[in-house]
Amino acid sequence: MSARPSPTTAQPSGPLRFGPRSTAALRPAAEARLTGGFWAQRRRVNAEVGIPQGPALLEAAGNLHNLRLAAGAADAPYRGDLPFMDSDVYKWLEAAAWQLGESRTPGGAGLAEETARIIGLVGAAQQPDGYLSSWFQVARPGERFTDLRWGHELYCAGHLIQAGVADHRATGRPELLAVARRFADHIDDTFGPGRQIDGCCGHPEIETALVELHRETGEQRYLDLARYFVDRRGHGLLADPDPGSRPAGAPDGPPTGPGYCQDRVPIRQARNVEGHAVRQLYLLAGATDVAIETGEPELTAAVERLWTAMAATKTHLTGGLGAHHDKEDFGDAYELPTERAYCETCAAVASVHWSWRMALLTGHARYSDLVERTLYNAVLPGVSLDGTGWLYVNPLQVRDGYQDHGGDQTSRRTAWFRCACCPPNVMRLLASLPHYVASGDDQGLQLHQYASGTWTAGGTDPVAVSVETQYPWQGRIAVTVERSRPGEWTLSLRLPQWCEQYGLYVGDRPVTAPAEDGWLRLRRAWEPGETVVLDLALEPRLTRADPRVDAVRGCVAIERGPLVYCVEQVDHPGGGLDDVLLDPKSPPAVKHCPDLLGGVVVVVASGTRLGLGSAGPQGGWWPYRSTADGSGAAPGGGTPLELTAVPYYAWANREPGSMRVWLPTTD
Amino acid sequence: MSARPSPTTAQPSGPLRFGPRSTAALRPAAEARLTGGFWAQRRRVNAEVGIPQGPALLEAAGNLHNLRLAAGAADAPYRGDLPFMDSDVYKWLEAAAWQLGESRTPGGAGLAEETARIIGLVGAAQQPDGYLSSWFQVARPGERFTDLRWGHELYCAGHLIQAGVADHRATGRPELLAVARRFADHIDDTFGPGRQIDGCCGHPEIETALVELHRETGEQRYLDLARYFVDRRGHGLLADPDPGSRPAGAPDGPPTGPGYCQDRVPIRQARNVEGHAVRQLYLLAGATDVAIETGEPELTAAVERLWTAMAATKTHLTGGLGAHHDKEDFGDAYELPTERAYCETCAAVASVHWSWRMALLTGHARYSDLVERTLYNAVLPGVSLDGTGWLYVNPLQVRDGYQDHGGDQTSRRTAWFRCACCPPNVMRLLASLPHYVASGDDQGLQLHQYASGTWTAGGTDPVAVSVETQYPWQGRIAVTVERSRPGEWTLSLRLPQWCEQYGLYVGDRPVTAPAEDGWLRLRRAWEPGETVVLDLALEPRLTRADPRVDAVRGCVAIERGPLVYCVEQVDHPGGGLDDVLLDPKSPPAVKHCPDLLGGVVVVVASGTRLGLGSAGPQGGWWPYRSTADGSGAAPGGGTPLELTAVPYYAWANREPGSMRVWLPTTD
Repeated sequence: MSARPSPTTAQPSGPLRFGPRSTAALRPAAEARLTGGFWAQRRRVNAEVGIPQGPALLEAAGNLHNLRLAAGAADAPYRGDLPFMDSDVYKWLEAAAWQLGESRTPGGAGLAEETARIIGLVGAAQQPDGYLSSWFQVARPGERFTDLRWGHELYCAGHLIQAGVADHRATGRPELLAVARRFADHIDDTFGPGRQIDGCCGHPEIETALVELHRETGEQRYLDLARYFVDRRGHGLLADPDPGSRPAGAPDGPPTGPGYCQDRVPIRQARNVEGHAVRQLYLLAGATDVAIETGEPELTAAVERLWTAMAATKTHLTGGLGAHHDKEDFGDAYELPTERAYCETCAAVASVHWSWRMALLTGHARYSDLVERTLYNAVLPGVSLDGTGWLYVNPLQVRDGYQDHGGDQTSRRTAWFRCACCPPNVMRLLASLPHYVASGDDQGLQLHQYASGTWTAGGTDPVAVSVETQYPWQGRIAVTVERSRPGEWTLSLRLPQWCEQYGLYVGDRPVTAPAEDGWLRLRRAWEPGETVVLDLALEPRLTRADPRVDAVRGCVAIERGPLVYCVEQVDHPGGGLDDVLLDPKSPPAVKHCPDLLGGVVVVVASGTRLGLGSAGPQGGWWPYRSTADGSGAAPGGGTPLELTAVPYYAWANREPGSMRVWLPTTD
Repeated sequence: MSARPSPTTAQPSGPLRFGPRSTAALRPAAEARLTGGFWAQRRRVNAEVGIPQGPALLEAAGNLHNLRLAAGAADAPYRGDLPFMDSDVYKWLEAAAWQLGESRTPGGAGLAEETARIIGLVGAAQQPDGYLSSWFQVARPGERFTDLRWGHELYCAGHLIQAGVADHRATGRPELLAVARRFADHIDDTFGPGRQIDGCCGHPEIETALVELHRETGEQRYLDLARYFVDRRGHGLLADPDPGSRPAGAPDGPPTGPGYCQDRVPIRQARNVEGHAVRQLYLLAGATDVAIETGEPELTAAVERLWTAMAATKTHLTGGLGAHHDKEDFGDAYELPTERAYCETCAAVASVHWSWRMALLTGHARYSDLVERTLYNAVLPGVSLDGTGWLYVNPLQVRDGYQDHGGDQTSRRTAWFRCACCPPNVMRLLASLPHYVASGDDQGLQLHQYASGTWTAGGTDPVAVSVETQYPWQGRIAVTVERSRPGEWTLSLRLPQWCEQYGLYVGDRPVTAPAEDGWLRLRRAWEPGETVVLDLALEPRLTRADPRVDAVRGCVAIERGPLVYCVEQVDHPGGGLDDVLLDPKSPPAVKHCPDLLGGVVVVVASGTRLGLGSAGPQGGWWPYRSTADGSGAAPGGGTPLELTAVPYYAWANREPGSMRVWLPTTD
């Protein structure tokens, strides 16, 4: 049993510190400590390896050099040709700040010094009027705010603001927040009704950042500016001056088009998510933040409608989002390819940001269902188990004989990217992860995610619980009331969407609770020390897709608890994976493998290898066969094969080879 | 019965006029006249609508303007930002030349004048030393041959040469060939061992053009230069000076990479086709031309190996080639997506060019099998039935609710493209189509394709046949010997790869002939007037793909004869196509519809509509369902539906909607 925490009135030290006028149904936990188990292990690698490698990588890639150029402290050409290189620095600073907010951060003193040094550099690069963009200051002088579609100035400002808010909130230091406010004030003086520019940024991000700045500072003008940027989308402000000017296959400029830039239709009229996935999701996170602060029903209805459409028609099994390599965008409804899935790690991070805001805004559990799925299966695969190898695109299949063309979009892990948006995004999410676990309201405390630790939440007289669990490997979640308050209050436990069977106990007694909108709600006068156990059955599941998801017709995926599994070639010597079938009639088994991939539960299933090997098609030189009844090329024969599936988050951590999430079946 | 043609010693007037040292197994027909039936109808539209609209479209798009700028005959900014705009003009000139080579070309005199005018403009734009590129002369002065990866100078030169050869061969005019030779001589003086530049072009095309120029002029230097360009591929001459410099999703320059540019591996060592599909196919057509002229066994083995690998693992059912939108390139083996098929019309044209050369080089029928499939199902869909609407990408599926993002890569027909490579490519292929039908050798005459007309071929004492057929609507092909020679010779008829049942008759008597390597060979002393009838059974077929083609698992396609069919939303009112299943147990029926789509045979099949409509997934907000045995989301229920399939070449000629080539089955 954990030590009982002392009563606290502390403000939340993570993302989303709502002010008094917030209309959200739920509020973030006031205290959030994640102390053990699965996520603690992943967060330790992030703290000990991931974040510490940042400054050297940002130095090697030129990001810090470019800021020194802007500060007049160096004298050489601008490095790289991307206008948003500053944002990598800001996202890393945000990650470091959340990490520094934890009392026992490894190497905390060194990290504090390192961040102070880089914060100083950022401040030195800022222009007297508050403007800050190393790209425009150094590489495009005099062109400030002339290319809102691709310039990324407001996008970078957004990440600067997020970093400033995080650094102030988590460490109490004022410097970076001050830099951010100066830029925010400059933007507010420049953009808006009756100001110099009526426009918005080709890459959303500043919207959510401005709402957080409003929350941190109490200044209404930042919320008003965020709402303005949300409102002005979809009115053609970002129209391409040369429409249709992108040649097929011969891009001679950045991708454009109103859909890509989130400028085709106003948010309140949109029917489904579209365009560049990260842009869409950052924008919707910002719109949800605006709705939380303004309570506007129409905007709330719009984000609810768009979230449901996205989840129902455009989300990969892993929670990954994105269908096209060429514009990094969503496809049509149910267009969810496997090997060409474009599940950018940043889109997964942005999806968690958005869904968490939706969960707080509405109180509905389904948003945290998607957060759980996304964290385990779309964010985490983006970083290797050792914290040094990254994936930008997270495909659901790598074919036998996959040809690696290199570049950011490769299906092989990479030490860093030219467009290095993803790694620091993973860092900042892992560093702030404890804050996505619990919430509170006047009714009590809600546990959205299951991880060992302590959470304090619940209105003016908060309550606290501690959690002990080996989740996701084991289904037993023990929740102990650490601090109560007079009278009844409700402990709400999310019953995961994937769960078919569970047991619920108070002390040793089985109890029933109404499963209400995805929540198991236990309302009583809780005594400190009382324990609730939720025991989720973790049988492996075989999952099929809606028949309209053409890409995976005739296939199943293996899942267990919140984890999506995959098969990797390395576990199946003697052939590839493209002619392997799974037998759904034979129930899969589980095997605990403490020494494999940092300790995982493996799922073993029966299958068949057709033995096509590297041979050409069965019919000779032509891979299609016709018959009167279409039965010509139905697979048959083959040799039995034991299929070993590992959690998808742990793929691509051994020798490179083929991989499949979706497996064709023998039936 | 056609009039018996007089004996001829004329040289072939189409592509590939082999010289005496050619090592090809077969030689193109000396005379080729296509007089009626299916292709005559398509060629009439090409001659009466397609080609005549060229000058106005090239004027509107700026291509002719740019040549006038280069000629010093205009004074305004360069139009467009593609360095290869001249090539559209050359391809159109080539199409017009082949068309002018036909004695009864509609509007022939006007077309002759029009081409003469434009040929004059091309000549005027040429620089004194023979160099010609309006882009570099006008928009990038002083940068000649400094950007071989993207400059497209040799690519444009190749199309100029092809046009020059065609114009000279088909019309006898010397002017354009002279312009082409001057540029070819300049290139030969500049490139090669010991010359100023050791390099090749980022976009192959000049290789095959130089071999044709060698054939037209007899000059060895052009063949040597073609071989040099073929040999120097794959040695890193086109290496990106800034490797990995393309950011994911933020291209700031043309696509690059050694695979894309056909410079990753020398042709003789390559194991499969890769990279940009059109580049790959033009290169392999050129390599095959070199092999035809040099007889080099290693090069011959390489192109045979690559063709088989392509056909077996990277060819869509339609014959279309290409798997990725972002680089217009081939995917991995068996990576053949449907809605994201990247079957560029130019790749289909190039595939016909290459396969026809392979057929002549080797004498094997399978190459013409692919030519047939590609002509009907990959080239022809690229142009609308009325000759004015084009498709650049030819997808195999358009989803319900498809969102049209415009641009060249749209799934909707377009009047012209910014990158307008495809339309004039279709024009030149249709204009030269009669030359892809028959060949000859000392043994006799081979019919590769079936169309009504007259063909003369067969060595020093050629023979001639006429063909009467309603193919592909009917399977009866009547071949009459129009001119014979003393002694026995062999009439070879390709037995199409798709054909399971056929009858063969000489006069009225059924005969048998050995089906040898895809050929039905009838050897005898033929008398003029003797008739052979090949009667191919045209039952509709249901076709399945190799199990490794993940994209179409659990689906069948409908085929009949050489035609691939598809279903279009317009024929299925009351819903979309994404929840429709085909019942393979119920045999499909055919219906002759003379008033539909210019006259087609429709295939009618039994199916089911699941009735999911525009509803979300059956399980609520999440489109995946799990059970212990994976049987959760198997489709069931639905209402019976008669499925009407039309030939794929005729799709997208009515109101826009969804479309599918591959249909899921009820079993």
